[in-house]
Amino acid sequence: MARRQKTKKINGKIRVIPLGGLGEIGKNMTVVEYDNDLIVIDCGLGFPDEDMPGIDLVIPDMTYLETNKDRIKGVFLTHGHEDHIGAIPYMLRSINPPIYGTPLTLGIIRGKLEEHILPWEPNLKTVKPGTRVKAGAMEVEFIHVNHSIADACAIAIHTPLGVLIHTGDFKLDTSPIDGEMMDIMRLGELGREGVLLLMCESTNAERPGHTPSEKKVGASLEYIFSTHAKKRIIIATFSSNVHRVQQIIDTSARHRRKVAITGRSMTNIVNAAMELGYMKVPAGVLVDINDIKRYKPNELTLVTTGSQGEPMSALYRMAFSDHSQVTLDANDVVVLSASAIPGNEKLVGRIINELSRNEVEVLHDAVVEVHVSGHACQEELKLMQALTRPKYFMPVHGENRHLSANRELARYMGMNDRNIFISEIGKVLEIDADGARWGGTVPAGKVLVDGYGVGDVGNIVLRDRRHLAQDGLIVAVATVDCAGRMLISGPDIVSRGFVYVRESEELMEEVRQVAYDAVTDVLEHTRRRDEVDRMLLKKRLKDDLTKFLYTKTKRKPMILPVIMDV
Amino acid sequence: MARRQKTKKINGKIRVIPLGGLGEIGKNMTVVEYDNDLIVIDCGLGFPDEDMPGIDLVIPDMTYLETNKDRIKGVFLTHGHEDHIGAIPYMLRSINPPIYGTPLTLGIIRGKLEEHILPWEPNLKTVKPGTRVKAGAMEVEFIHVNHSIADACAIAIHTPLGVLIHTGDFKLDTSPIDGEMMDIMRLGELGREGVLLLMCESTNAERPGHTPSEKKVGASLEYIFSTHAKKRIIIATFSSNVHRVQQIIDTSARHRRKVAITGRSMTNIVNAAMELGYMKVPAGVLVDINDIKRYKPNELTLVTTGSQGEPMSALYRMAFSDHSQVTLDANDVVVLSASAIPGNEKLVGRIINELSRNEVEVLHDAVVEVHVSGHACQEELKLMQALTRPKYFMPVHGENRHLSANRELARYMGMNDRNIFISEIGKVLEIDADGARWGGTVPAGKVLVDGYGVGDVGNIVLRDRRHLAQDGLIVAVATVDCAGRMLISGPDIVSRGFVYVRESEELMEEVRQVAYDAVTDVLEHTRRRDEVDRMLLKKRLKDDLTKFLYTKTKRKPMILPVIMDV
Repeated sequence: MARRQKTKKINGKIRVIPLGGLGEIGKNMTVVEYDNDLIVIDCGLGFPDEDMPGIDLVIPDMTYLETNKDRIKGVFLTHGHEDHIGAIPYMLRSINPPIYGTPLTLGIIRGKLEEHILPWEPNLKTVKPGTRVKAGAMEVEFIHVNHSIADACAIAIHTPLGVLIHTGDFKLDTSPIDGEMMDIMRLGELGREGVLLLMCESTNAERPGHTPSEKKVGASLEYIFSTHAKKRIIIATFSSNVHRVQQIIDTSARHRRKVAITGRSMTNIVNAAMELGYMKVPAGVLVDINDIKRYKPNELTLVTTGSQGEPMSALYRMAFSDHSQVTLDANDVVVLSASAIPGNEKLVGRIINELSRNEVEVLHDAVVEVHVSGHACQEELKLMQALTRPKYFMPVHGENRHLSANRELARYMGMNDRNIFISEIGKVLEIDADGARWGGTVPAGKVLVDGYGVGDVGNIVLRDRRHLAQDGLIVAVATVDCAGRMLISGPDIVSRGFVYVRESEELMEEVRQVAYDAVTDVLEHTRRRDEVDRMLLKKRLKDDLTKFLYTKTKRKPMILPVIMDV
Repeated sequence: MARRQKTKKINGKIRVIPLGGLGEIGKNMTVVEYDNDLIVIDCGLGFPDEDMPGIDLVIPDMTYLETNKDRIKGVFLTHGHEDHIGAIPYMLRSINPPIYGTPLTLGIIRGKLEEHILPWEPNLKTVKPGTRVKAGAMEVEFIHVNHSIADACAIAIHTPLGVLIHTGDFKLDTSPIDGEMMDIMRLGELGREGVLLLMCESTNAERPGHTPSEKKVGASLEYIFSTHAKKRIIIATFSSNVHRVQQIIDTSARHRRKVAITGRSMTNIVNAAMELGYMKVPAGVLVDINDIKRYKPNELTLVTTGSQGEPMSALYRMAFSDHSQVTLDANDVVVLSASAIPGNEKLVGRIINELSRNEVEVLHDAVVEVHVSGHACQEELKLMQALTRPKYFMPVHGENRHLSANRELARYMGMNDRNIFISEIGKVLEIDADGARWGGTVPAGKVLVDGYGVGDVGNIVLRDRRHLAQDGLIVAVATVDCAGRMLISGPDIVSRGFVYVRESEELMEEVRQVAYDAVTDVLEHTRRRDEVDRMLLKKRLKDDLTKFLYTKTKRKPMILPVIMDV
């Protein structure tokens, strides 16, 4: 720090703008600018909340990038998880900046891009940990970290004003499966030279202690394989957890079991990882899922998707007897080598219950340690602080509870509250030679993807969907001669999602009567020569039906009045 | 056992019929019959799953009780939680058997019944632990157990063939707040005499070890009060957890704090518990929530509902600045003295996030031990087996995963698989002098309550609600002269929950055109003199619009064709 202050005052300005991942889980995306140069860290998607029915996924609002596309020097990816790369196909619809990432990260992206039609050839540039990429006045350095996917990196951004570090997702694994511990040497080196701003992930900031090593899962697998020597073993895990799959394959090989892979994403990623050399499979161990009948149960391990209980996943289909090659029974043990992501507990529970009902043994993380987190717990977060000794600190990646907990850790490490910035998406942090401060906002938010539609479903549509889900709807249609002030036909009543009509005929007849009274009352009170006011007719229908139905049923179905004028 | 076999063979038959609480959490209800006499244990409600939008609560199908109402000798309640008593107001609509329960249980029921209009005066009969009630050829005995509500009991049913024990919900608390440990002496006595069937709860059967004593929470409260002496303390917990509230009041009194209660159910239950003597409040400690301005923050504890994140609960309103007496800030600490019930994690998270955003400190069970379960863990479940030494075993109260885990414990205790019966709702277990076996089924299921409607929402209505929630709907209305084969007006298109119409005018115009083409095509192809087939018109509209919209948007909104004939 001291050194920097002695040199000539630098006039440039840094702007840090999160576009996603703060105040929420997922859709991670951060913009860093130095004067006119702009870079982007990650481009992830998020999954819809339960109050967004019908939505497939959520991506960051990228208006700011579209408006400033000529300034973008590159998109820099920390690793290949959906919440860090999943919005790339959508970004590429409007802008085409160079995209930098490690081989596995880009390998996964190539697979994803095949499913999208794009207006141009994407510009993917492979980097290795240690690589430094020039980005205008900035230089971007990739630093190896441990995580639940191989080839993950933190990112250091060298600017004339100092170094910014973005940790991405990380944990410290002193016994990682690929032999490469997080590069704490390099982080410490940067810390010694002086780090201006640390942006540190917050996912596990509420959890005390250290996250266990991936190797611990290997020990649990060994135990499970030893104690279930007579059963077929089915293991569900995240397809992107290459090291987990490696351990399953290694344990299987040691126990002379063949391994079959099932589930589309599992097959895809295992193939990509093998091709790129991130997975080493002993010859003859992998067998095709269609050939498993050739082996006895105790000669087989199946690796499958579905650890989050996803309906239609391979495990779900197995559990509900809908998988074409695999039927489960008391001779099988299913291992859920994953923890349920918040919101998925019930889906996972549904699979466990169905398996239990069919006397299939189930081992999950509440019973055996078959999963470890990929994110740093409190002691590792403190280590990151201690290594990098930043001047300013911005917790990233997490809901407000996680950001607050990470701030608490920084305070514990002696950081002054003045230098800690809890930001939100769209909020600009400015740093220059005089210090750091908030600097206004840019457009930011959630863009909802539903089928082919990107952004065409917003709050009004969602509010209607929630309303429809709650109490269903009543459509009241009347054909009216507006000029002649006469009811020609109807009102007809159609309902969906309200009551079982065949058993509520009396109620539906009353509804029709209320609608009829409303329409005729308006018609009768329209003065001669005036045309009937259709808006008034609709309003009366809506008001009268809403009131009648609430009194009668204590429900508020959506009322949709339609007036056909002839 | 040996004794019984020496006596003359008994011809009677026991039938055990769960009507709720197996293969599910909640709506606990079990029928036990001896020949012509019938008793019911508990009458609880369940909460809707996420695939039951709009449903308020779920109760057991009571058809079997209604058909056999003359045989019912009584309803026997284990304790006053909703999942054991909540369906009583609905049961009382059609039958009016005597209802037996301990004072607090009946006190809570009286409060609930005030909100319902019933065809008769309910017949509530107060019992104490140790009471034996004659029920035809059976005798029903209440046995004190520990649980997260005071006055909880297990139930022993004495029949000529032997004793059946239903544990209700229980845990073993060696240092309970009211000084009364579970009556393991009596359970052991029954075991020594010979228990024919044990029905044991399974909620925590997956959890190893012992459930901690309620007293442990007291120690955590003491720690929190000592370390937050300058802050106002707000504690959210289950209103029915009388002992928890007692501990909060005691700790507050020791720390010279006044206690204010907020939230309707909390106020109701605290009043009932005080009246009935289940709660002892030192004079001058309780203050009205409207008077809290008279005290400094460090002189106050607030006890509130909302520990499950319920929108509209007092805590929710406090967090979102919508509570008329309480506004929270950095001078407050909020303690969530509860764990989130599965499915409620996101709701609870929403409150924690909002509080964090406003710099309110939050302590929850992941951070401090501010909650203990009310259910027996594995060691206590084994103790129940060891005490009662039953001939037959039926795990109850839990999803299939829990029932299976409880069976595993019984096996571990040396029970033969032949004598363990995993049942499901409506399934009859018969026991007579020759042994135990399945004995057919009776009607059972879920009855959905939505507003005033009980059972008028079923699978078809729910399927429509889910469909509407997913992609919204399109109503296509055409006025047609069917006899004259002419389109008179329309087709008009109305949509809700599909796309934001103002920004999708082009798409909506295309939809109208597709509908127009469908209608005119049918009209043109109807032979002269034939009347237009309205069903065919509707089918074409539905098919053509569905196909067009899926190709165009990859969505499947509900299509509602309406043909008005003039």
